[in-house]
Amino acid sequence: MRPSGRALNQPREIKITREFTKHAEGSVLVEFGDTKVICTATVETKVPQFLKGQGKGWVSAEYGMLPRSTGKRMQREAAKGKQSGRTVEIGRLIGRSLRAAIDLEKLGENSIHIDCDVIQADGGTRTASISGAMVALVDAVRYLQINKRITDDPVLHYVAAISVGMFNNEAIVDLDYIEDSQAQTDLNIVKTCKGGYVEIQGTAESEPFSSDQLQDMLSVADQSIAYIVKLQKQALDVIVD
Amino acid sequence: MRPSGRALNQPREIKITREFTKHAEGSVLVEFGDTKVICTATVETKVPQFLKGQGKGWVSAEYGMLPRSTGKRMQREAAKGKQSGRTVEIGRLIGRSLRAAIDLEKLGENSIHIDCDVIQADGGTRTASISGAMVALVDAVRYLQINKRITDDPVLHYVAAISVGMFNNEAIVDLDYIEDSQAQTDLNIVKTCKGGYVEIQGTAESEPFSSDQLQDMLSVADQSIAYIVKLQKQALDVIVD
Amino acid sequence: MRPSGRALNQPREIKITREFTKHAEGSVLVEFGDTKVICTATVETKVPQFLKGQGKGWVSAEYGMLPRSTGKRMQREAAKGKQSGRTVEIGRLIGRSLRAAIDLEKLGENSIHIDCDVIQADGGTRTASISGAMVALVDAVRYLQINKRITDDPVLHYVAAISVGMFNNEAIVDLDYIEDSQAQTDLNIVKTCKGGYVEIQGTAESEPFSSDQLQDMLSVADQSIAYIVKLQKQALDVIVD
Amino acid sequence: MRPSGRALNQPREIKITREFTKHAEGSVLVEFGDTKVICTATVETKVPQFLKGQGKGWVSAEYGMLPRSTGKRMQREAAKGKQSGRTVEIGRLIGRSLRAAIDLEKLGENSIHIDCDVIQADGGTRTASISGAMVALVDAVRYLQINKRITDDPVLHYVAAISVGMFNNEAIVDLDYIEDSQAQTDLNIVKTCKGGYVEIQGTAESEPFSSDQLQDMLSVADQSIAYIVKLQKQALDVIVD
Amino acid sequence: MRPSGRALNQPREIKITREFTKHAEGSVLVEFGDTKVICTATVETKVPQFLKGQGKGWVSAEYGMLPRSTGKRMQREAAKGKQSGRTVEIGRLIGRSLRAAIDLEKLGENSIHIDCDVIQADGGTRTASISGAMVALVDAVRYLQINKRITDDPVLHYVAAISVGMFNNEAIVDLDYIEDSQAQTDLNIVKTCKGGYVEIQGTAESEPFSSDQLQDMLSVADQSIAYIVKLQKQALDVIVD
Amino acid sequence: MRPSGRALNQPREIKITREFTKHAEGSVLVEFGDTKVICTATVETKVPQFLKGQGKGWVSAEYGMLPRSTGKRMQREAAKGKQSGRTVEIGRLIGRSLRAAIDLEKLGENSIHIDCDVIQADGGTRTASISGAMVALVDAVRYLQINKRITDDPVLHYVAAISVGMFNNEAIVDLDYIEDSQAQTDLNIVKTCKGGYVEIQGTAESEPFSSDQLQDMLSVADQSIAYIVKLQKQALDVIVD
Repeated sequence: MRPSGRALNQPREIKITREFTKHAEGSVLVEFGDTKVICTATVETKVPQFLKGQGKGWVSAEYGMLPRSTGKRMQREAAKGKQSGRTVEIGRLIGRSLRAAIDLEKLGENSIHIDCDVIQADGGTRTASISGAMVALVDAVRYLQINKRITDDPVLHYVAAISVGMFNNEAIVDLDYIEDSQAQTDLNIVKTCKGGYVEIQGTAESEPFSSDQLQDMLSVADQSIAYIVKLQKQALDVIVD
Repeated sequence: MRPSGRALNQPREIKITREFTKHAEGSVLVEFGDTKVICTATVETKVPQFLKGQGKGWVSAEYGMLPRSTGKRMQREAAKGKQSGRTVEIGRLIGRSLRAAIDLEKLGENSIHIDCDVIQADGGTRTASISGAMVALVDAVRYLQINKRITDDPVLHYVAAISVGMFNNEAIVDLDYIEDSQAQTDLNIVKTCKGGYVEIQGTAESEPFSSDQLQDMLSVADQSIAYIVKLQKQALDVIVD
Repeated sequence: MRPSGRALNQPREIKITREFTKHAEGSVLVEFGDTKVICTATVETKVPQFLKGQGKGWVSAEYGMLPRSTGKRMQREAAKGKQSGRTVEIGRLIGRSLRAAIDLEKLGENSIHIDCDVIQADGGTRTASISGAMVALVDAVRYLQINKRITDDPVLHYVAAISVGMFNNEAIVDLDYIEDSQAQTDLNIVKTCKGGYVEIQGTAESEPFSSDQLQDMLSVADQSIAYIVKLQKQALDVIVD
Repeated sequence: MRPSGRALNQPREIKITREFTKHAEGSVLVEFGDTKVICTATVETKVPQFLKGQGKGWVSAEYGMLPRSTGKRMQREAAKGKQSGRTVEIGRLIGRSLRAAIDLEKLGENSIHIDCDVIQADGGTRTASISGAMVALVDAVRYLQINKRITDDPVLHYVAAISVGMFNNEAIVDLDYIEDSQAQTDLNIVKTCKGGYVEIQGTAESEPFSSDQLQDMLSVADQSIAYIVKLQKQALDVIVD
Repeated sequence: MRPSGRALNQPREIKITREFTKHAEGSVLVEFGDTKVICTATVETKVPQFLKGQGKGWVSAEYGMLPRSTGKRMQREAAKGKQSGRTVEIGRLIGRSLRAAIDLEKLGENSIHIDCDVIQADGGTRTASISGAMVALVDAVRYLQINKRITDDPVLHYVAAISVGMFNNEAIVDLDYIEDSQAQTDLNIVKTCKGGYVEIQGTAESEPFSSDQLQDMLSVADQSIAYIVKLQKQALDVIVD
Repeated sequence: MRPSGRALNQPREIKITREFTKHAEGSVLVEFGDTKVICTATVETKVPQFLKGQGKGWVSAEYGMLPRSTGKRMQREAAKGKQSGRTVEIGRLIGRSLRAAIDLEKLGENSIHIDCDVIQADGGTRTASISGAMVALVDAVRYLQINKRITDDPVLHYVAAISVGMFNNEAIVDLDYIEDSQAQTDLNIVKTCKGGYVEIQGTAESEPFSSDQLQDMLSVADQSIAYIVKLQKQALDVIVD
């Protein structure tokens, strides 16, 4: 039995709310149970220096946590004058994951910048961020289309993310904070709606995990990925088949 | 006529939602129209170095804006490695204002740290922050009382804040972003529920303001301060007389 | 009776010495009693990025204190790698105050940068800085005129500043360090020679101040502002009427 | 055929040189072909603040590249005043990987800090770093044993790392820089000498990778891991079975 | 002939004014012609961490320039968040030079911190700083003696500094800015009142200098060092023999 | 007798290895006994902003130490976010010394950037750096000639550096760490192959040094400078006369 009482392959209740704030071209509140993240997408009609003149676009991302999104207050990174290694790492992961969803050629010389800001944390903030940011990204793409900045659809596929782990030698999905702190292994999986892997990051917390355990964890994730993609499409009023 | 269509002395719709996030000892979402700020209060059972051993407590505050809380995305201060002068200034203002609400002796050797994070900005973020943070502060004080860390009530009075300005030579209250950018003068007022001034900060935007204009602006603020205090007390289930 | 022995409305002896250092286009030593600040004005024949091509000029300011300008040595901000919130705040206040003195259109695409560096502090460094910097600013304007960079006079009015406070329930003017640390309220006022308000910043130090006290403080400042403007004009050999 | 002409499962020539520099308790030059990294291990007879008094030890790591270890010179991070996200990320990965090799209880209240500095880069610097640092770590443990700081052997198992990727739809091992820049997928694997996974980090560079491809890549790594462990043990004069 | 019209071995007019500001235990304005530096000495009745419990004291120094002490305004280092290499280098030089003047054992566990801040620069700011700081240092020592913190006299000898250079193949002393920018060589010499060398730092600006030129430059400095020591002692009311 | 057992005028065994790493245009490992420094030279076909359009080139340098190049580990400067004063100072010294070796006009609008990174320290890292960097610099110049970026030879002369000091009142050359920490004086000398002085930097460590001692130290250095120049030329296959 899991501490959360959920079935091994059962994710938390997941909610995706679009148009959460009014200024951004895409703005989503994503909730994985008690984990809540504001994901905004900002359109810029230019690209970073290293891409200029190549006719291609760019997708980048940054991540942050409100100081008291956690049980114990964390020092404000802006006040400290430095982002932690973890913060930078997650921002880079979100950016890479979302770039995999987009045909950068079809984006033209436009950039979409994603900001994921955790307002309440209960485990799985990075997978919630990627899953919610995907929806904000599509809204930003639509904004570019409506404003005739692009004509083709650069969205290659939807990307969703979930965490899995070993707990009492069973593979479980979408760990909350309590489960995460007791798990033997922590694995984050980012996949496309078509089942391709975009990112896989696993760390043995207490002792190494075996090949069999790895296979179990990979398997248990698939159902949740499909479920998240369905919610993403529903939120975006895409016909789900 | 004001751009917002409001009467000269009419503030925006103001909402105060307690227990907005689950971890902080006080957590408030405050809305002044489209301006939305999360105010959390964190209790620490210790005091800064300079107060140690004096039997007194402390109240401090920090302020931040999500990068896309504004119409145009602002660079993330944590990524830049530096808070802007404006950010630091507002954090200091919130801290001073709330310290005026508290008898630091009665707080004992405890600290309450306020974080005000703007998730959507439409003018008046600093006055909304102070007004919402006051409620989070009271929740943090109650937490200390319930946990028997303090016995006396250190709350001296409620503190609320509102902006006023000169627009077309009329004093108007609670300016939204559009009004603020066209106003001749920008004045922020922090008062107690008993009518005492805690802070007053005014800047002539285009041309100096006269003594008469200053008096008009001071007058127009009072009704809104009383209205906010009433909302603060309702939110906190304090009997309003 | 005030600790300084001065009358309630009596400022300290104020001295303004022009051409204090030789390199700057304007260079003033301003003394408010034992408070001594070097104010220099630097002319640049260009404007910041955000103003380019608009035919307008700019006035900016920075503030600093020598490490041992104070009774207890303060850490050198350059060595710490960071300006304090107070330092940035005062620099911004000086800049805003002096921009109010200048018609930026008439300044053309030129910038004047003010540096106020406190070499000895005894209370009121920000008001001394503004009052002295006004004179350095005029010298910089004259430099632009003599060098035919501008033809019109962009000086709209002289700007001067003074601090007021409540001490033993009496409004007193131009507080020195001892008085400032015992005052109930601290209010800084920046006005033009014509009596218009440019900035007003007040903080209740120990307890809130009433409307009546505010009025008393505003009144007691006026005589000193007029006195400082007279000294500014004398220093600049302007005919004083 | 691979650009390097190597067989799909053939790593580069790997060399591990102990006692490369004279001051550190462990000092190794590790070479994966043209990739060369100096790995030092520093013993400290104390632990970080968060571990004090728990009778446990700690292993931490930092990573760096000499500015001209690469084809194009990179700006010196010390001069820039900031480590890149990639630098911090790799340092954290090395630290986590090596902590998995050690029983921290048996280490007592001692710390071992690993520094991996790339003097020549040709792809795979992070896997070379981990593989070489393992040997420096064992030397540091031996130093603690010889100096009677610990009695038990805290080394749980040897940890080695290798990169794999998809190239022309074939899984290949230990990619050099040319291969890495053309690969479809980049996967770094850290395993113990007993076959357990410590870390797995994979990124789809151009398009998502399938489950089958993931399995192929996992398989092709195993032989190289075994080979590196054998070299580690030879370098350390451990009897290899 | 020198640009300044001075004889080859003739320094500028040098003035040393004690008690220039009121807070510091030693406060000196030193003038080498148009070069003007405020040197303050701050007494702390403790020592840095690395000296604790050894019964010895410490002397340290920092250097800075007001932004407009120079012909062209320099960016404020506190605003930039970083001291330049030159600034740090000169601070270290001043500290080393003054430590040579003091028997640190006799200073007891007390520290004296020197701040040298250039308010007007015209060449030779580092040599003026050292020469003026020596006087502030003695005043700080006297403060310690008067306050019974120390009984012995820790001043071993007076230290003074002067610059020399090659100009038109002649050795000249105490170069002003114009001379310095045209000189072939720049050599700074710090000596004691007894003729011992404390520091010697020479740089060939345009072409290497010969042994003979070095000897000439060393010779021409001696007379000026003696002159400065005489002024230091006069300023301090020490009987000059 | 010296602690190292060497004769007073006997430097350590000095080795210069070219093509130490493969990417840089010049790459040298220089060894002065146990002091080992990697010196790379990077060619850029552009110049810094302040030189643009003048037809002249530039030579700059940076210095660093691997954290465990020393007996006690030093904190990584990139992690601390700040270079020490010593680090910056030595980088500037190396840059100035090598610029003296080059006719910047003949270098055309090209830059050569030197990186000196100490991998093992045993005293004299700055003199080893300069001596080794000279060889990397010549390799970079040859690269520019082979690639037809320049036609003339900009190398004016070879520059070499050695440390000298007073030990037991005798002048000794090329001090190792043990000798350096016991020496009364520390003097670094940079000279050209023709005997001209480029830099001279001396510090009295414990007590001032006399003119006679200075002369002794200057004399003892000459033989070593000649020896290093011979090794530089041998390494570069220059015919030594």
